[in-house]
This record gives sequence, structure tokens and C-alpha cells, in this order.
Amino acid sequence: MVKYPSGSLAAFRKPINKKENEIRHTYTHRKGVNFSDRGMTLEQQINESNKYYLNEEIAVVHKKPTPIQIVKVDYPKRSKAVIREAYFRQASTTDYNGVYKGYYLDFEAKETRNKTNFPLKNFHEHQIFHLSACLKQKGFCFTIIRFASLERYFVTPASFVINAWREKDKSSMTLKEIEDNSYEIKSGFRPTLPYLKAVDNFIADREREL
Amino acid sequence: MVKYPSGSLAAFRKPINKKENEIRHTYTHRKGVNFSDRGMTLEQQINESNKYYLNEEIAVVHKKPTPIQIVKVDYPKRSKAVIREAYFRQASTTDYNGVYKGYYLDFEAKETRNKTNFPLKNFHEHQIFHLSACLKQKGFCFTIIRFASLERYFVTPASFVINAWREKDKSSMTLKEIEDNSYEIKSGFRPTLPYLKAVDNFIADREREL
Ligand SMILES: [Mg+2]
Ligand SMILES: [Mg+2]
Repeated sequence: MVKYPSGSLAAFRKPINKKENEIRHTYTHRKGVNFSDRGMTLEQQINESNKYYLNEEIAVVHKKPTPIQIVKVDYPKRSKAVIREAYFRQASTTDYNGVYKGYYLDFEAKETRNKTNFPLKNFHEHQIFHLSACLKQKGFCFTIIRFASLERYFVTPASFVINAWREKDKSSMTLKEIEDNSYEIKSGFRPTLPYLKAVDNFIADREREL
Repeated sequence: MVKYPSGSLAAFRKPINKKENEIRHTYTHRKGVNFSDRGMTLEQQINESNKYYLNEEIAVVHKKPTPIQIVKVDYPKRSKAVIREAYFRQASTTDYNGVYKGYYLDFEAKETRNKTNFPLKNFHEHQIFHLSACLKQKGFCFTIIRFASLERYFVTPASFVINAWREKDKSSMTLKEIEDNSYEIKSGFRPTLPYLKAVDNFIADREREL
């Protein structure tokens, strides 16, 4: 059995004598430090969730590394290689992909501090293109959007986001539209962000359609 | 319809008046330069094939970027960001993954100049671990092994490779074992390396078992 490395979020403990819904925004660290999920970025929350899903053999999902063009590498004696000149390259995919119960998952994670809408300019063309291409291959494709000021998380099917993005003169999705077209998830303990609950719903929806 | 950028392999043309099997190792470039598939690395062949599969809307498979830990970035005025100090990090997955007809694909590409066997030390523990984890999630997991000196390509189910790797005192898979447990593919024109033919067989095998 793979164990969480010490110091990872698995070392957090639920405060006792509190009900599930009361503890949603407050965890107690082993050393007694209190903090809310505001202390983590959305990416950190998803990465922690993916570790949990991997360790529990529930799903295998990884963040794609940032693509880098390496120009110059030094190989110092008795020491590891150092990249001395490199450039960021344009990604051609989304942030995350993986496999769950035989299904291909592909998603992009986005945060906003806006309270009433999500600006569509946050999606890049290559992300929209990639999500469309994966949808055509029958992958389960979605976005996880975090409204940081509201501490709300939405798992939105890619088809909805793609259509909104392609709509002429549409610059954002309103919170209402997102509420109406997404599966909302609550941040929690194990996993930090249980986004596979939303995926289970998408799978059930598709199977009903077949 | 997405087009190949000019200068990519799509610009190659089949020589006319030759039968399929005669032209397997010789292409004629638009400008008249002859070369064989020995001129490309296995990774280049797979990347070209993935471009073809993507453009033809057959599958979406990408190479994972090398994970890099970035320590220092310069932001020169009027110029793009330059990474000035960074280190190679251990990968946690295989080289490639993606989606094909709803199926999750995951594979590792390996070359050898050996003629009679493939040394198992070429597989790293994290690759074996990752392939096992994806298999448990019902992904289609395999390796593409190129015997460069023989110009032979084998698509081998991950289950076979994992078992060989875990076998005590076994240091390599013999060519014979690989022949007996793989789907052999021929390098060709479009795509350069038609590995999805092997995947079609794996899918058919699994469906027969169900
Ligand atoms: Mg993102
Ligand atoms: Mg490799």
C-alpha cells in the first residue's frame, strides 16, 4: 500500500465532535494550526485529491507538466544537471487527464475572484480545441471552476463551456448559467475536492442516453 | 479541418508504381531526398503518428512534457521570460496517454539496438507502477518497443511487461517472448507508426473476454 508522504495533506485530521457540513471550511493541522481551503490554490486542492484517488486505487489522474523548451544544460561534476537556459512553450492540452473505471477524463481547472460571472477569456483556444477533440473521442471532459471569493466549486461539462466560448459577443458565463449547467462540489477532507462525484453523475447521464 | 503545417511529414509523398510492402522502408521527399525510417527516433515516429491521428480525428494522444522544477526565471524587458535555473524532476507517469473511441490509452516507448532481447532495466519503477495503476482502472496500457537494428516494432500489452519486470532473476525479455506476446507493426507512411492497429486488436480481445 502506498502511503502519503509525511507532511502532505493526509496528515490533517478532522476536528472531532463536528458534523460533516460544519467542518467544510475548517481543518485542523496535526500541529494545531487552523486554516480554511482559502490557504490552497485550486491546483493544490486537485493535486491532493488526485494523490488520494491514486493511493486509494480509485482513479489515476495527473497534472501535465508545463512544456519547456530546453536550450542549455550544465552538467556539473558530482552534482545533478542544471538547466541554464529554457523557455516556456505553449501547451497543447488541458491541465489534467487520466483514467477512472475505464473512462478517459480530461479537464481544465480555473479560478476567479469574480462573484457573479466567469470571464471566457480565461480559456485559451488550445484548451477549447483539445476539449472538443477529446469529446469527439468520447472522453469525459469538463472544467473545474472555483469562485474563490464565494468558496464555491463547479464541475461543468466541456460541451457547455465550448458552446459558451464559441458564442459570438459572449464574454462570460454568469454564475447562474454555471449553477444551472454544472455539478457543484464542496471542498472536504479526503479527498480535498471530490470531483469524481460529479464525474459519476456525468457517466450516469451518458448511460441513460444510450 | 486542421491541416498539417508545411514541412511536416504530411508533405511526404508515396513513390508511385510501387506496392505497399515494397515501399515500407523508403519514402521520397517532395524535394527528392530519399531516407528510411532509420532517420527518425521512435519518439519522433510516434509524435508524427499522433499528429496524423489528431488531424484525422482518429485519436487524441500526446507526449507528456518532461517535468522540470523551475528555480529562477528572468523577465527581460521587451522579451520573453527565460528560465535561468531549473532541474529535471522524476516523472511519475509514462511517455504518452490519450483517448481513442472512448478508451483510455497509456504507453511507454522504448528503443534498443540489441538484436535478440530487450533489457528490463530500461523500464523504471515509476513506469511499471503507473502502468499497473492504469490497468486497474481498465485503461489500455502497453509499450511500443523498437528493435532499431532490426527495424521491427512491437506493441506489447503492459500486463506482459509488468510480469516480466517483476520476475526475480529475469533481466530481459527475449525477442522470441516479445514476438509471442505482442502485436507487430510495420512503419509506414500515414501514419508513420500505425500503433492503433494493435490497440484495435487489444480492444477486440477484451471484448471477446467479456
Ligand atoms: Mg488551469
Ligand atoms: Mg520512453
